[in-house]
Amino acid sequence: MTVQMRREEDSLGQMELPRDCLWGIHTQRAIANFPISGLPLAHFPEFVRALAWVKLAAANANLELGVLAQDKHAAIAAVCKEIIAGHHMAHFRVDMIQGGAGTSTNMNANEVIANLALLRMGHQPGDYARLHPNDDVNRSQSTNDVYPTAMRLAIVSQCSPFQDAQRRLSAAFAERARAFATVRKIGRTQLQDAVPMTLGQEFAGFAATIDEDVAIIGQLSRLLLEVNLGGTAIGTRVNAPAGYPEKAVAELSRITGMQAKLAVDLIEASSDTGAYVTFSSVLKRIAVKLSKICNDLRLLSSGPRSGFNEIRLPPVQAGSSIMPGKINPVIPEVVNQVAFQVVGNDLTVTMAAEAGQLQLNAMEPIILLNVLQSMRILMQAMDTLAERCVAGIEANAAQCEGALENSLVLATMLVPHLGYANAAKIAKTALARDRSVTETAVELGFGTREDIQAMILSEA
Amino acid sequence: MTVQMRREEDSLGQMELPRDCLWGIHTQRAIANFPISGLPLAHFPEFVRALAWVKLAAANANLELGVLAQDKHAAIAAVCKEIIAGHHMAHFRVDMIQGGAGTSTNMNANEVIANLALLRMGHQPGDYARLHPNDDVNRSQSTNDVYPTAMRLAIVSQCSPFQDAQRRLSAAFAERARAFATVRKIGRTQLQDAVPMTLGQEFAGFAATIDEDVAIIGQLSRLLLEVNLGGTAIGTRVNAPAGYPEKAVAELSRITGMQAKLAVDLIEASSDTGAYVTFSSVLKRIAVKLSKICNDLRLLSSGPRSGFNEIRLPPVQAGSSIMPGKINPVIPEVVNQVAFQVVGNDLTVTMAAEAGQLQLNAMEPIILLNVLQSMRILMQAMDTLAERCVAGIEANAAQCEGALENSLVLATMLVPHLGYANAAKIAKTALARDRSVTETAVELGFGTREDIQAMILSEA
Amino acid sequence: MTVQMRREEDSLGQMELPRDCLWGIHTQRAIANFPISGLPLAHFPEFVRALAWVKLAAANANLELGVLAQDKHAAIAAVCKEIIAGHHMAHFRVDMIQGGAGTSTNMNANEVIANLALLRMGHQPGDYARLHPNDDVNRSQSTNDVYPTAMRLAIVSQCSPFQDAQRRLSAAFAERARAFATVRKIGRTQLQDAVPMTLGQEFAGFAATIDEDVAIIGQLSRLLLEVNLGGTAIGTRVNAPAGYPEKAVAELSRITGMQAKLAVDLIEASSDTGAYVTFSSVLKRIAVKLSKICNDLRLLSSGPRSGFNEIRLPPVQAGSSIMPGKINPVIPEVVNQVAFQVVGNDLTVTMAAEAGQLQLNAMEPIILLNVLQSMRILMQAMDTLAERCVAGIEANAAQCEGALENSLVLATMLVPHLGYANAAKIAKTALARDRSVTETAVELGFGTREDIQAMILSEA
Amino acid sequence: MTVQMRREEDSLGQMELPRDCLWGIHTQRAIANFPISGLPLAHFPEFVRALAWVKLAAANANLELGVLAQDKHAAIAAVCKEIIAGHHMAHFRVDMIQGGAGTSTNMNANEVIANLALLRMGHQPGDYARLHPNDDVNRSQSTNDVYPTAMRLAIVSQCSPFQDAQRRLSAAFAERARAFATVRKIGRTQLQDAVPMTLGQEFAGFAATIDEDVAIIGQLSRLLLEVNLGGTAIGTRVNAPAGYPEKAVAELSRITGMQAKLAVDLIEASSDTGAYVTFSSVLKRIAVKLSKICNDLRLLSSGPRSGFNEIRLPPVQAGSSIMPGKINPVIPEVVNQVAFQVVGNDLTVTMAAEAGQLQLNAMEPIILLNVLQSMRILMQAMDTLAERCVAGIEANAAQCEGALENSLVLATMLVPHLGYANAAKIAKTALARDRSVTETAVELGFGTREDIQAMILSEA
Repeated sequence: MTVQMRREEDSLGQMELPRDCLWGIHTQRAIANFPISGLPLAHFPEFVRALAWVKLAAANANLELGVLAQDKHAAIAAVCKEIIAGHHMAHFRVDMIQGGAGTSTNMNANEVIANLALLRMGHQPGDYARLHPNDDVNRSQSTNDVYPTAMRLAIVSQCSPFQDAQRRLSAAFAERARAFATVRKIGRTQLQDAVPMTLGQEFAGFAATIDEDVAIIGQLSRLLLEVNLGGTAIGTRVNAPAGYPEKAVAELSRITGMQAKLAVDLIEASSDTGAYVTFSSVLKRIAVKLSKICNDLRLLSSGPRSGFNEIRLPPVQAGSSIMPGKINPVIPEVVNQVAFQVVGNDLTVTMAAEAGQLQLNAMEPIILLNVLQSMRILMQAMDTLAERCVAGIEANAAQCEGALENSLVLATMLVPHLGYANAAKIAKTALARDRSVTETAVELGFGTREDIQAMILSEA
Repeated sequence: MTVQMRREEDSLGQMELPRDCLWGIHTQRAIANFPISGLPLAHFPEFVRALAWVKLAAANANLELGVLAQDKHAAIAAVCKEIIAGHHMAHFRVDMIQGGAGTSTNMNANEVIANLALLRMGHQPGDYARLHPNDDVNRSQSTNDVYPTAMRLAIVSQCSPFQDAQRRLSAAFAERARAFATVRKIGRTQLQDAVPMTLGQEFAGFAATIDEDVAIIGQLSRLLLEVNLGGTAIGTRVNAPAGYPEKAVAELSRITGMQAKLAVDLIEASSDTGAYVTFSSVLKRIAVKLSKICNDLRLLSSGPRSGFNEIRLPPVQAGSSIMPGKINPVIPEVVNQVAFQVVGNDLTVTMAAEAGQLQLNAMEPIILLNVLQSMRILMQAMDTLAERCVAGIEANAAQCEGALENSLVLATMLVPHLGYANAAKIAKTALARDRSVTETAVELGFGTREDIQAMILSEA
Repeated sequence: MTVQMRREEDSLGQMELPRDCLWGIHTQRAIANFPISGLPLAHFPEFVRALAWVKLAAANANLELGVLAQDKHAAIAAVCKEIIAGHHMAHFRVDMIQGGAGTSTNMNANEVIANLALLRMGHQPGDYARLHPNDDVNRSQSTNDVYPTAMRLAIVSQCSPFQDAQRRLSAAFAERARAFATVRKIGRTQLQDAVPMTLGQEFAGFAATIDEDVAIIGQLSRLLLEVNLGGTAIGTRVNAPAGYPEKAVAELSRITGMQAKLAVDLIEASSDTGAYVTFSSVLKRIAVKLSKICNDLRLLSSGPRSGFNEIRLPPVQAGSSIMPGKINPVIPEVVNQVAFQVVGNDLTVTMAAEAGQLQLNAMEPIILLNVLQSMRILMQAMDTLAERCVAGIEANAAQCEGALENSLVLATMLVPHLGYANAAKIAKTALARDRSVTETAVELGFGTREDIQAMILSEA
Repeated sequence: MTVQMRREEDSLGQMELPRDCLWGIHTQRAIANFPISGLPLAHFPEFVRALAWVKLAAANANLELGVLAQDKHAAIAAVCKEIIAGHHMAHFRVDMIQGGAGTSTNMNANEVIANLALLRMGHQPGDYARLHPNDDVNRSQSTNDVYPTAMRLAIVSQCSPFQDAQRRLSAAFAERARAFATVRKIGRTQLQDAVPMTLGQEFAGFAATIDEDVAIIGQLSRLLLEVNLGGTAIGTRVNAPAGYPEKAVAELSRITGMQAKLAVDLIEASSDTGAYVTFSSVLKRIAVKLSKICNDLRLLSSGPRSGFNEIRLPPVQAGSSIMPGKINPVIPEVVNQVAFQVVGNDLTVTMAAEAGQLQLNAMEPIILLNVLQSMRILMQAMDTLAERCVAGIEANAAQCEGALENSLVLATMLVPHLGYANAAKIAKTALARDRSVTETAVELGFGTREDIQAMILSEA
């Protein structure tokens, strides 16, 4: 059985493709040129959908401005809507890591949309004389405005689910904070015993620090909505009809329901990748916070007998292939690792941003891959942490309260009453004698037991 | 000649200090403990000033709340005002890189202020029974709220001069943009010739991208003004009188003229360093943009004969010890290097932020050093770039315009008229024949010379 | 149709699995716990193979030491050999990003091997009373020695193909260097015209810099062969029979043909991840070099008319969706991006290494993922660069030689004859008058045309 | 009183300098151009000394080859030897962060040496007709070979003191390991109680991991000794007499006692910065290990009552301005911070290395600054850690042994005897009943007390 072939041509020469193949010669060359990561565009459907949004907005603007025939528009628009609905993903095949500043991605979209539109119009794939990937689907466009616009929309489209994951995690901590509101324990600075607090306060801090970044993601998503669509190749609007950029961006807002805005300086916007640096930095900030929290959860649950042992994480799997009964903090550990990946990805984004030259940053594909990947693994990590760990954490109240009574730092509460030097003497003596602060204060003659306890209580 | 000595004591034992030494035993131990970077606190007078702001605000609040005697307050306040005015810097001697979460910094301030206040009250340095570094100067305070509050204020106090440097650099580019408004040249994407633009547009893009970060610095400086002063050791306000945090922060605003705000969750605020991660990330963003711009300036001025040679940077020094007459882009090069340092410093900040544990981040000193250093070298770099490079850049208009006429990318403007495939054929043929686009289009029969030129002009 | 189920139990409780499922309860819990990256163990068959090597070596040692019955050994060994041959990959399903320090990976291997061995012995999957994942397959082992040993072997096993890719790329540059041996051109420092060289010398430099890292990979692979197999949980050999570590490592060497060595200090070796930091750093070094080379290739091929235009990269795809005829350096661009990813991955490895605690580094899974991924994309990038770019590069000899004649830096060769100051004067005057160095030297009275040319030639 | 001035000239024009000023116009312009870090060359005397080594070696080779007169050589050589002996440092004034690829550094050296030589010959500073900074001091040289050669020698010259610091730290850990050889304690993986070990084993691991990097520093220092001296501007030896490179490098070896070698491919060597990337990576590796160790020391000493409390760090300063008696792990904390700085510096080095272009890397000054700074702070940190922390660490043997008896992980030792499932059941039951492993095993009927203890002992 032989596969029927068709022939396509570009400025480098001719190539045969299976007759029904929905992509064309540009895509096929790119598949061959970039066998790098093994992750095709389709691995990020949120990005393919964003490409289709841009193509649909462009087609609508082109129709309105009279540079795209109605039948062509109808076919292109119908295909774009199918892609937006999640169809045809398998045909977006170019590797996410690619040279060419996204041209191969844009051409993959142009070719697939053209061929699907041709089929819908009753023609054969490849019959580009009737509807052309460049002259029709890419009309008034350049990779250099299509690709970054789609990048931005893809990222923004993930912000809302990202915020949902942040809120769920914050809520899980807040719920535990309420449950632990009355569990008194020793605070710790520099891993040394410090003054008292409640376990509820500690968990409320975790909730608060996660929660305050929800709004930051929201602010940044608005910044990302400044797009350069219509700037075409370098921001000078070459080959775009008058009024096209404004119409295309308005269409984009209408289609997506997002408030896309045309950048003020389209030339600056064509090469600038500062928005991704900022966005990725905030993902890094979130990662750093998550890692700190997970380090704390692992410390607080260390033990069960030779550690802090103030909380118990819910067991989700046996901990060891050799030590029976051991339960490990596997969920915080996986979140730590996700955090390290996100910090590394942020560096990749930074270096790629620095490598922009003159009117374009050709390194945008690696930026896109790293930002989308960081968002995805952070979302997964936050949900895993909330559901499989935080929600099931139990306090070891006996341990918490016992340690507090035993603590030397109660001497701190004596400072306002006896002065720093006397309090230090009491603390040091108590440690040496293995006695409590109150006992030692009495023994050293600073008052009766009742006096000392009154001093401590007045500061607690 | 013998130096007269005095004796001080702490919980580790006794130590002799020169009788007139303005710091005390805690500072002296820290000097010995941390011989790391060779950069003392005094290397950053903006930070010492911020420490004095905090100490003055605390003293005022303590006076008002009746926990600090009037004569002690008067002496402490007077000394703080002298430090704020820039005096006594030489006595802030602890290394910027220090363990102890800033305790040694706080004690250096407490001791110097106490001893200066003692002198002012007519007593001897070290006569702490009359005025005590901890019990009086540090009254109601902990390193854990004093140090981060001073960090934040120090950084914010540099934001306004930082923004001035941003504005000066942006203005320098904008001025050149106006001067180059009519110099037409070829745009470049991926280092390959692309469609036309003006040199003025290119420089306006530089101005715009620098300028848009002025506002971001302003927004962040407001974020940094959320302080934890009054939270004391871990955010539970232990040893601070009722009402102290609110009064101390109000005093801080009054003294500094900045809008300091008490953080909502003082426990979260005591250990969180997310604000520094964000601030440092924005410095990184600015560094990345500067590096990209300087790369562009170096590319555009490459030559003088075998490069792009579109602009001439002002010569500021001879370029080579071996190649006479060579002039190198030394100012952009130094800015590139500053940018790399800032990106490295941002990573240090990130790792330090991640290393916070439980109720405190003990790694704040290295965060402070890196943020202040990045701000300082960025400011110097921006001013150097503006004054010694950008202001004196000249256009090589003949080269710019000549290259444009010669360019194959004019074929792009034919696409809307002849279609992508025909335009590609013209461009490829012109390259092969070493002819112009217009000539080749005519030769290939796509119209008369006038036709073709009209097509190109209609898209320019 | 209902799936027949079997029941398994661990210390957390019971679970139902499809009767024929080759993994067990530990793997199943891990699949549920770690829905992070979507990349299963099977995505890196080189690692699964290394796991099987370790399991086979352990089984052989256990047999010899009399702690594993012969029939069990026979079954386990046969299964391991099948996995080594590439079979059963689909059953290695746990996510590469996982908590638990690799326990889930080890248990995935233990369970799949146990169940395949049970089938081979004529029993049902899950019939662990007859052959147990822990008591038999994991006999004398702990995740904490199995997992890092397999990591090291997996990395080392990729070193040889990695070196082959390095050599192919170096050879491609060397071949072009020979082809360009006589193409004289201007050298450039700081992007400014400098003294002459040949294009062949430039390409020979690329070959040399790639080539010198082949040996470094070889040295490092030997370092990685120091394994902790037999140290079990923390390096104290607990539960391993006397002589087991030595026998197991000797078996490992025999099976793999690599020279594995038992680490001297097994406790240190259990938690240390320094070898990965070093290995990843060398990958970073290679990435940095590749990025620099690709930046050079893009610079040298900039144009075609308004750039350096000294070389022509082979066109591998059309360059632009809007600018017909444009050819972009897409292969160097993709290599740049791979380099940025590798640098980011190195940071992830660094942070994970820093996060080790006490007797173990629980962050090894993210280290493994990043090292293997960096190796893979670097290999792909090097081959793509060699085959699709370097091999087809052509010199633009006319441009190279023309620029040289025109150059001012020939003044450098006059320095030994006329002194630096006179040579500088000649260069500066030539630039101002738009004349050649020789003409200007004559005009300024430094000799005849013949004199000057003789001076230049004597230094070239 | 007026300062007597002299006039100097370069290709940009004339400038007045104080008559006795030892630097000249090139240095003066550079001081004005680079007001960046405030750190002059003299901040790193090891680098100034290395510059003088190179200048002396060059002068010797020039003399031998007959291109430098004997009287000039004598004066230059004498001055170089004075600089090598540590004199004249104050005149090396250019900022360490500078553009121009080190030209200003080289000219600072050329001018200071020339003027000192002129004085020594009985002439005035600035009388360059008698001895010229470029034509004589810089004879046969270019910044592009002098500067990187001096960089390499400066770094190598610090390797031996660096190794001494490594050895001292390793020895301090080893000494404590011997003191703690019999202190039995619980090992911990993933912060959870694991199988037993001794505190001595733990500290021996610290000693071993530090010690194994001593040799690596030694290997790398040999790599750095491949220099490009004599390659001049771009590695083609332009303006260097025949035989000069070989002679100059031989002189360098003779003068320094180091085994400098001429690089094989001088063109590759002129632009390659891979050796710095590798060296900096090893500093990073050492930093990461130190950070991990310090994290462990802080964990093990956490408490004193609510932590692991297995060791006591020597108190070196009072810990808190508010909590009397608190002692913090300030020395490990400062080492952690140094480690973070070194990791950040390594990134700066990486980015600078990546930014090399064509025949040179103009970003070498920032590489040099970061490598020397990282070496210096690491040395200081290692010595501080050894002297002020490790040497005084005490074991809390009662706590260590008590925890061990109480531990559930003794169940691990039952695995070879009772199987993994039974051992897990014992451990889980013991935790639930708050009983010991032995008691629980007896209660569950697995043997008598004697049986169980015999099983445990047989594996310990």
